[in-house]
Amino acid sequence: MPFPTGYAIGTQVIMIELDFEKLSGLIPVIVQEHITGEVLMMAYMNREALDITIKTGFAHYWSRSRKALWKKGEVSGNVQEVKEIRVDCDNDCLLIKVRQEGGAACHTGYRSCFYRVMRGDEALVEGKKIFDPKEKYR
Amino acid sequence: MPFPTGYAIGTQVIMIELDFEKLSGLIPVIVQEHITGEVLMMAYMNREALDITIKTGFAHYWSRSRKALWKKGEVSGNVQEVKEIRVDCDNDCLLIKVRQEGGAACHTGYRSCFYRVMRGDEALVEGKKIFDPKEKYR
Repeated sequence: MPFPTGYAIGTQVIMIELDFEKLSGLIPVIVQEHITGEVLMMAYMNREALDITIKTGFAHYWSRSRKALWKKGEVSGNVQEVKEIRVDCDNDCLLIKVRQEGGAACHTGYRSCFYRVMRGDEALVEGKKIFDPKEKYR
Repeated sequence: MPFPTGYAIGTQVIMIELDFEKLSGLIPVIVQEHITGEVLMMAYMNREALDITIKTGFAHYWSRSRKALWKKGEVSGNVQEVKEIRVDCDNDCLLIKVRQEGGAACHTGYRSCFYRVMRGDEALVEGKKIFDPKEKYR
């Protein structure tokens, strides 16, 4: 359990029941670098992925395409150490702050999955490439 | 059209076809304050909401509960001026950077919808309250 326990006096504590129903058992998760605030990626968790994330302290997601639980960085080594989990006002979205091992979250080798800026139907590549995916996944 | 046109020499430009199909016509949108990097909220856009957002320069979303297009801040006045739109590697999620009018994005009066930090099944309120919703929505 990587998170601190115990509350400061005066802290407002609320019971949370997350809403996994709106997306058929999944909840969207925004992943933010804990120091720089850069948004690295968005993924989905089911209840099990969240439980394992909390238990291990490393981000686990549900892959919609592979229909399987996955530990982020399992293949690439670029795991995400979870520093904080926040929940939104509707209990249907999470924001997690992580330390990104290897400095890159995206399977393309970019630091963030959001490495393209839109201009109409086009997009400009504007992000930092950290690794060559051909080297990482083989 | 609030976004600059024209490209610097050497800029890599890519045609983008957004994937609205994975979520039945919707795409999740992460909303980040353009200067501080604070994640303010998450919402959904359909094609029309995105087109109006680009055309007007102010964030418009699709409300899943009301099944209607809405301009963020229409009632409260807390509109979002869009500074940048980014797209993720799978073309199925957007990250928009905004100037948040009134300093608060959440209908509860907090600056961010993510004003609660999770500790197991509980959450601690840890965010800045900017307005009293009873005063704003009546």
